[in-house]
Amino acid sequence: MANENNKNVQKMVDAITPMEEDFGQWYTDVVKKAELVDYSGVKGCMVIRPYGYAIWENIQKDLDARFKALGHENVYMPMFIPESLLQREKDHVAGFAPECAWVTIGGENQLTERLCVRPTSETLFCEHYKSIIHSYRDLPKLYNQWCNVVRWEKTTRPFLRTSEFLWQEGHTMHETEDEARAETQQMLQVYKEFYAEALAIPAVTGRKTEKEKFAGAEETYTIEPMMHNGVALQGGTSHYFGDGFTRAFDITFTDRENKVRYPFQTSWGVSTRSIGAIIMTHGDDNGLILPPRVAPIQVVIIPIAQHKEGVLEKAAEVKAQLAKKFRVSLDDSDNSTGWKFSQYEMKGVPLRLELGPRDIEAGNCVLVSRVSRNKTVVSLDNLVEEVEKALNAVHDELYARAEENLKNKTFEARTMEEFLDIAENHPGFIKAMWCGDVECEDKLKEVTGGVKSRCIPFHEDVLSDTCVCCGKKAKHMVVWGRQY
Amino acid sequence: MANENNKNVQKMVDAITPMEEDFGQWYTDVVKKAELVDYSGVKGCMVIRPYGYAIWENIQKDLDARFKALGHENVYMPMFIPESLLQREKDHVAGFAPECAWVTIGGENQLTERLCVRPTSETLFCEHYKSIIHSYRDLPKLYNQWCNVVRWEKTTRPFLRTSEFLWQEGHTMHETEDEARAETQQMLQVYKEFYAEALAIPAVTGRKTEKEKFAGAEETYTIEPMMHNGVALQGGTSHYFGDGFTRAFDITFTDRENKVRYPFQTSWGVSTRSIGAIIMTHGDDNGLILPPRVAPIQVVIIPIAQHKEGVLEKAAEVKAQLAKKFRVSLDDSDNSTGWKFSQYEMKGVPLRLELGPRDIEAGNCVLVSRVSRNKTVVSLDNLVEEVEKALNAVHDELYARAEENLKNKTFEARTMEEFLDIAENHPGFIKAMWCGDVECEDKLKEVTGGVKSRCIPFHEDVLSDTCVCCGKKAKHMVVWGRQY
Repeated sequence: MANENNKNVQKMVDAITPMEEDFGQWYTDVVKKAELVDYSGVKGCMVIRPYGYAIWENIQKDLDARFKALGHENVYMPMFIPESLLQREKDHVAGFAPECAWVTIGGENQLTERLCVRPTSETLFCEHYKSIIHSYRDLPKLYNQWCNVVRWEKTTRPFLRTSEFLWQEGHTMHETEDEARAETQQMLQVYKEFYAEALAIPAVTGRKTEKEKFAGAEETYTIEPMMHNGVALQGGTSHYFGDGFTRAFDITFTDRENKVRYPFQTSWGVSTRSIGAIIMTHGDDNGLILPPRVAPIQVVIIPIAQHKEGVLEKAAEVKAQLAKKFRVSLDDSDNSTGWKFSQYEMKGVPLRLELGPRDIEAGNCVLVSRVSRNKTVVSLDNLVEEVEKALNAVHDELYARAEENLKNKTFEARTMEEFLDIAENHPGFIKAMWCGDVECEDKLKEVTGGVKSRCIPFHEDVLSDTCVCCGKKAKHMVVWGRQY
Repeated sequence: MANENNKNVQKMVDAITPMEEDFGQWYTDVVKKAELVDYSGVKGCMVIRPYGYAIWENIQKDLDARFKALGHENVYMPMFIPESLLQREKDHVAGFAPECAWVTIGGENQLTERLCVRPTSETLFCEHYKSIIHSYRDLPKLYNQWCNVVRWEKTTRPFLRTSEFLWQEGHTMHETEDEARAETQQMLQVYKEFYAEALAIPAVTGRKTEKEKFAGAEETYTIEPMMHNGVALQGGTSHYFGDGFTRAFDITFTDRENKVRYPFQTSWGVSTRSIGAIIMTHGDDNGLILPPRVAPIQVVIIPIAQHKEGVLEKAAEVKAQLAKKFRVSLDDSDNSTGWKFSQYEMKGVPLRLELGPRDIEAGNCVLVSRVSRNKTVVSLDNLVEEVEKALNAVHDELYARAEENLKNKTFEARTMEEFLDIAENHPGFIKAMWCGDVECEDKLKEVTGGVKSRCIPFHEDVLSDTCVCCGKKAKHMVVWGRQY
């Protein structure tokens, strides 16, 4: 059996296409072989398998605690939006109608009004807020929901773009514009900290251009991590709506001066795409590398020469000790040690703990980092501290490596020629000046075959006075790049 | 403002219809006034508000830990089921097709095959299991998912019957019939313990009759708590499927003797209906009473004479102390003490902690139970222990009271006359013998205007030898009752 399994794994590891050869195929191989997802017979929908879903549970737990610490409360809105409700805000419906799935039959009857399966829930929140907001004393309302949403996509990829996906959507209402704007910024900052602290992913943050902002928003802020291959992934967005929706939905409140006013609104979301960001930021040719704070298994214990007396007993003891603080797994199966090493490397377990007869005799074990592959001999006496230190080191290594990649693959273009050369030959982000006209955005996308504005970052360098595209006076420095 | 609020609360408490007058209206008043739900413009769908959703989060946390302790893993399946997939198992589709919502348009195009919004996910799990189960080594598979489902209902009531609801659905696959049957029973037992230990709700458990079992199941087991008014609520079900679905979906595995066989399957679910059970089991004319282990606020601190020096400071200190172990809230608003008392009674907070200048001087505070209204003076020195004791006492009181209600409202009928008399005059459960024929079930339902078999309990009393309805030889003792 050990032999048979060895063969299996040999085949399994071989079957991961090298990144340099075909990054897209590498991604597909990894999500499938690491058992994160399975394809389903439903067009564009995925099955999230236990190992993938456990990552999502850890993401939820981390984000949810951050939201609640800032006073947000969870709620649940219906998943159906009557067509008339969706149409209430004109820009919003124009943005979402083309990708809606529509329920037209319910309980064997044709519906008199068709229902959209929510692509996002601004309209539902507005309807509810209208019924519960009356006075300034009812504000702010800081709501969030965890749910599934549907956007009918033509081409889909697990986690990155699926017709149905899981996410959280925060929806808040405020007395003043200042307060709502501060909330928008605060939640972007929460996302940035979450990406850095939980996922070990650095990112560029900033404001979307008019063309790229959310349908119905006044401002959209975005967090844009760079994947290993230099392509951007929109990791989360935070929108300031002003009073656009509250006017459209006639949501009013009596303010402190007894005047009737419209409240100001925000929304913000992070989805299962963040799992795609983890895979493509940290993974390597051996498979996944999971950041320790969301890894379903943080430490895997591999007994060495496990048939020898006392090894499995000691391994079980070590597991029990570590389980109090970490997500730990012990593989005492009959599979060969080599198979186990490959298997857990492929599954991206951040830390491997090897424990054999000689280690036990010396009162030690060996910790092996999935990132650096460094082996450290540590004493079993203060194992919890050592494991904690090692996991933090993995996190820091991952972050540093991703930051290095982001730095190395960020370029500056001062002329159109430079821009085109980088777009063609150097995958990554391009910093370049922009006049503010959508025509130049469109043109840059067209001539490069897909390079789009990622954001106007909070800290703009001044690279020159003129737009890289049209040569007119520049208004902003924009970060440009291809995207998932 | 205090006056205005007093008026409000007076009105609010008045507005709850007394249970004895109209139980249905009492229920509607409570869910609305306690801010558990809001109605939405979407037919049959509800908005679950923060206070209601927090109960669900606590239920999820409790149940999820019970599932995981038994080796179950969470996954996520698509929410859409292609019509051809739903039709694969004949009894199943016959049961669910009449209450399906159908997506027929996606991304502006008519779909070639319409998609059902999942009413339950047996078919999706089967499709996935077919792709991942090959050998006995792949078994058992113990999966669960937390999600929303849709069943198109004609008449709806918050939590009890809504077109969309939230639930968990466990779906497991096993090598042997024995193992699958044991899983079915085990999960029913988990539900029984959850209802008793987390919700303080006792219940009758047993097997559904052929007529009442789940579409496609060989056996359905059920947990049936009795509401305060004597009406049953199906609190959770656990199904044994045999190999019906696995044959229909052609799911096979190679067993230990190298033979190809069909695995055996179970599924089991508990939904947001359980919140309805909490409300109708424990509530009273003053509003909700929440069982402490799922209450969003377990202890509310009400400062007495809070304008006096040191009161609010001490209250904040007490809150910080309790917050380490309990979900605690301090109401230091300007509202009157009377308003606060009524408000938190209505919201069903299990324990009130009163703290005034004299208490502080004596080093005490007063604990008031929401159930018994008993006041206990306890020392601030060992407050955490006292609060823990008091919360456990509330739990026990609630359970005992509900058990008393269940006992008092369970009757025995040995003749049709007795059965009819009880059905008409004594709301509750009826124990009566049954021949096993569906005709008698149908007849009893018809003549009583809605009394149905709840279950064949695990422990059947022998009340007589003959069926209460037709007089033929009795096969089982059945518990009968009206239901939500």
